[in-house]
Amino acid sequence: MEFAYLGPRGTFTEAALRRLPAAKTATATPMSSIPEVLDAVRRGEVDAGFVPIENSQEGTVTVTVDELVGGDPLVIAGEIVLPVTMVLASHKAPDAIATVASHPHALAQTRGYLRRELPNAVVHQALSTAQAAQRVADGEFDAAVCAPFTAEAVGLPVQAFNIGDNPSAVTRFVHVVRPAAPPEPTGNDITSLVVYIEHDQVGALLNVLTELAIRGINLTRIESRPTGEALGRYAFFLDCTGHLADARMGEALMGLRRICADVRYLGSYPRDNADRPVQPPQGLSDAAFSDAAAWLDSLRGTGNA
Amino acid sequence: MEFAYLGPRGTFTEAALRRLPAAKTATATPMSSIPEVLDAVRRGEVDAGFVPIENSQEGTVTVTVDELVGGDPLVIAGEIVLPVTMVLASHKAPDAIATVASHPHALAQTRGYLRRELPNAVVHQALSTAQAAQRVADGEFDAAVCAPFTAEAVGLPVQAFNIGDNPSAVTRFVHVVRPAAPPEPTGNDITSLVVYIEHDQVGALLNVLTELAIRGINLTRIESRPTGEALGRYAFFLDCTGHLADARMGEALMGLRRICADVRYLGSYPRDNADRPVQPPQGLSDAAFSDAAAWLDSLRGTGNA
Amino acid sequence: MEFAYLGPRGTFTEAALRRLPAAKTATATPMSSIPEVLDAVRRGEVDAGFVPIENSQEGTVTVTVDELVGGDPLVIAGEIVLPVTMVLASHKAPDAIATVASHPHALAQTRGYLRRELPNAVVHQALSTAQAAQRVADGEFDAAVCAPFTAEAVGLPVQAFNIGDNPSAVTRFVHVVRPAAPPEPTGNDITSLVVYIEHDQVGALLNVLTELAIRGINLTRIESRPTGEALGRYAFFLDCTGHLADARMGEALMGLRRICADVRYLGSYPRDNADRPVQPPQGLSDAAFSDAAAWLDSLRGTGNA
Amino acid sequence: MEFAYLGPRGTFTEAALRRLPAAKTATATPMSSIPEVLDAVRRGEVDAGFVPIENSQEGTVTVTVDELVGGDPLVIAGEIVLPVTMVLASHKAPDAIATVASHPHALAQTRGYLRRELPNAVVHQALSTAQAAQRVADGEFDAAVCAPFTAEAVGLPVQAFNIGDNPSAVTRFVHVVRPAAPPEPTGNDITSLVVYIEHDQVGALLNVLTELAIRGINLTRIESRPTGEALGRYAFFLDCTGHLADARMGEALMGLRRICADVRYLGSYPRDNADRPVQPPQGLSDAAFSDAAAWLDSLRGTGNA
Repeated sequence: MEFAYLGPRGTFTEAALRRLPAAKTATATPMSSIPEVLDAVRRGEVDAGFVPIENSQEGTVTVTVDELVGGDPLVIAGEIVLPVTMVLASHKAPDAIATVASHPHALAQTRGYLRRELPNAVVHQALSTAQAAQRVADGEFDAAVCAPFTAEAVGLPVQAFNIGDNPSAVTRFVHVVRPAAPPEPTGNDITSLVVYIEHDQVGALLNVLTELAIRGINLTRIESRPTGEALGRYAFFLDCTGHLADARMGEALMGLRRICADVRYLGSYPRDNADRPVQPPQGLSDAAFSDAAAWLDSLRGTGNA
Repeated sequence: MEFAYLGPRGTFTEAALRRLPAAKTATATPMSSIPEVLDAVRRGEVDAGFVPIENSQEGTVTVTVDELVGGDPLVIAGEIVLPVTMVLASHKAPDAIATVASHPHALAQTRGYLRRELPNAVVHQALSTAQAAQRVADGEFDAAVCAPFTAEAVGLPVQAFNIGDNPSAVTRFVHVVRPAAPPEPTGNDITSLVVYIEHDQVGALLNVLTELAIRGINLTRIESRPTGEALGRYAFFLDCTGHLADARMGEALMGLRRICADVRYLGSYPRDNADRPVQPPQGLSDAAFSDAAAWLDSLRGTGNA
Repeated sequence: MEFAYLGPRGTFTEAALRRLPAAKTATATPMSSIPEVLDAVRRGEVDAGFVPIENSQEGTVTVTVDELVGGDPLVIAGEIVLPVTMVLASHKAPDAIATVASHPHALAQTRGYLRRELPNAVVHQALSTAQAAQRVADGEFDAAVCAPFTAEAVGLPVQAFNIGDNPSAVTRFVHVVRPAAPPEPTGNDITSLVVYIEHDQVGALLNVLTELAIRGINLTRIESRPTGEALGRYAFFLDCTGHLADARMGEALMGLRRICADVRYLGSYPRDNADRPVQPPQGLSDAAFSDAAAWLDSLRGTGNA
Repeated sequence: MEFAYLGPRGTFTEAALRRLPAAKTATATPMSSIPEVLDAVRRGEVDAGFVPIENSQEGTVTVTVDELVGGDPLVIAGEIVLPVTMVLASHKAPDAIATVASHPHALAQTRGYLRRELPNAVVHQALSTAQAAQRVADGEFDAAVCAPFTAEAVGLPVQAFNIGDNPSAVTRFVHVVRPAAPPEPTGNDITSLVVYIEHDQVGALLNVLTELAIRGINLTRIESRPTGEALGRYAFFLDCTGHLADARMGEALMGLRRICADVRYLGSYPRDNADRPVQPPQGLSDAAFSDAAAWLDSLRGTGNA
């Protein structure tokens, strides 16, 4: 089994990939951009891709979502949610640091720390945290803001741990494959969708949410984006609790299919959190759906039940 | 084919029954109460019953509804909606009328006329409009308020036509049979239901209506009644547009079955109004349901559609 | 203080009136019909009227509701809910009874008992339970089905108590006055309304219920009726939990006023049940409304809160 | 009047600022990051800030939103939506270009063009499109992907116009001030909000949308984000049609205030699109709100209306 992932080596993405069960015995090749990773999957050059899709610094990684939505179909087969921990990597003690470099997002995320602890250091932007660390290792700057394993990879000591302003910051990565039946339901799954509605009407969005709510399906994420295609056509990216194989998810998907301008299924996969499987609400189990179908069949056949 | 109907002969019920296509070539036996009619159907003594279920004077005919809901199952196979036209039947001219008799409901319905045109007449209550007309024919009272055919049946001239205060008053009758598959859909059908919910929560009723609304099903009648069974258990009598055989009605019924304490199906039958068959709303035709089911099957099989 | 009520003396209505606190020291005059009672109130001949509005046998007393909705305005200032207990009143023991008389509704309500215990008795309909009892007292029939106090009034012994098929049957009566500010809120109140919507759309009814639900207002009764005025115009009779003086009820009423073709307020009054006052749901107390209004004022004034 | 904006000079942000009516006669100072701009506003060093908040490449500019939501309050007083047009800036003809540089987002946005027209060029990432253009001007790379005015600013000829893969790409910028009463309503306004709900329940989000929908308020944008504060607490960023001064917006805001864990108002301001002012839906004008309030006052005072 072969994975491609967003490189370079030594970043959070590689650290997250190591945690993915499906990648345990796989070979893993870094690539220089998200589109390259996903195109390699599409062309069958690798079995699977692994890329960030959402993080606490940037919000949605739009290029990943755009790639999943456009072009030849791909589906998500798994997710990993990784805490983002930033360190100050330097050969010098903090009070001797005159210059600090990192990617703009990492600098934004540690702004409170830098203002407080290194108020006089000059800040430089780099193309990635890995590049910043390398340039510190090369002597160009005094310190880098980066992940612990990035510091380790270039041989820089850590002067301060956990310097992020938001200690609960996480990045979410997805395991992407060519269209295939999803992994088995675990009882704690996510189904990702994009639905398109024709108008910027809150009524249309209410209808979408109602199709989910009456089947006991929750949202863990929603994001609207104008599609640019035509006046008033909107796309909504939804992460829903539940699995394609669940009766209630099936009925909800059919409902969305009927009322939306378009629905694109992006995969069902186990949720990466500590939660145990949860039972569906009363009346929404597969058994309740079977019972209701049998009752309807009886009514249609004999007028009695 | 044999019908039983609520007698006596010469009432609105008999007039309505004559309009029912299914009764064209049937024999018809009057019975003295609604429970007798329906029990005769239950016991197989007749093929079908015909009774009033709702009218402009009394609202719901509760005894009919209670009989349909309790006891051995029956279903509605047809309806007739009959305009209610009242006449003043008498051998005397209006200004010579000193006493007028009728059923209390008919008196209530013509109260405006009687006050205006017969302000000095003494009003007497009778057990039915037919009994009142007979007592006028027998010379006990001067005039009766009754239907035109009732006056005709006892040989009384009509002194004034259309004396009802509400010229659009109607009575609705139902054709009731033992449980059986419903008549074929016509595109303009009603499905009658009783749903039970556990609490007097508007939220629970909203959920019921939402199950209907998202499938494009309208209500032509709703009525709540406490069931008396337990604190807070409510029954709702619903007349819904659509037919048991419609995909959208099937899905709505299954939804109600899952979320309600109980659902009792009371039949699908052609609506007796002048409306033409109407197309289901976009996305809610049987074809749209089939398309969505095929799409879901494809997703479940291959992850693609 | 003077009340008019639906007579004759000795019926359930008089028994209920005796329980109404506002009528404790009032004189009470029976009248022969509901319209007469309400017209006497309208014309100022009495201070208040007392009439049945809903019962377990007949459902809604349509004539009462129609009178409240049409003509000069009246409002409900109180309600009494009275258990309906039927007895078999006769000088003879049950096995010697050959004829039994009552009002058709009372006969319907005791049908199970009569079939089981008096299978051979001939049943006669009367205009009222009081009339039936009088005719038994006069020797015309052997037994009457009526209320205990009716039997007592005409001096008939009771052969069997509680013979109703539904032991939890009740009748609900209302205390009606000319328009006036309602009685003080008790925390356990009902507000009665009629709302009109233009079409028989479940969507329109959903909107009405949503206006109530988002303010935490429940329904204890709902009933639709075609208005007969124009194609598709429907009236809904609603009994809602809460009082006109509540902030949340006020906002809900204003919402209904804006979205409905018409709204008619029929009064706020204490609920006649054993329940204690209940707190409004979180966020829906008068205090929560005041807080939100102050917050909005601050935003509008300064952009800050 | 003094503005600070996200620099450097010569970017889309400066081009957008030039279009803002409120900035016509203002001095404008570029700053090196969004937090610096907004802090300068907070400290009163400038009167207003101007920063990107959303764009077709990246989606939401999370740092802007985070700054608006956290720290001392700021509000949005205006928006500018600017089409994003990308050019290929180079002294060489396309077929002679061996290296091309730009910011990763600009490269992603022109990926189709670069693949098709410059399939053999080596792509280099830069910290900004302005930096890329400067390095091309300095001779380090052959070509830059940037905005037309950026090419002009560094004296580079344009070899190809409109090379973006999505010709309708736009960036949205906001004019930010210290809390103040909003600009006058124009009839075509946006109100920006953040609402917090305690659980990841679709039901809670449905309630939020319902508070908007029943007041005829649409959404032009919705985005959820976990707050990181506590398990299951979610923030929703909403752009709503309407103005703080509208009666219906006021009632909706009060409703959200009551049902949400928290609501943060981020400003009401004219929408930057070609649309004319639109009338509120029937029943939701300020006049309809006044009428309903007067009706309620009358009911509360006299029981009549």
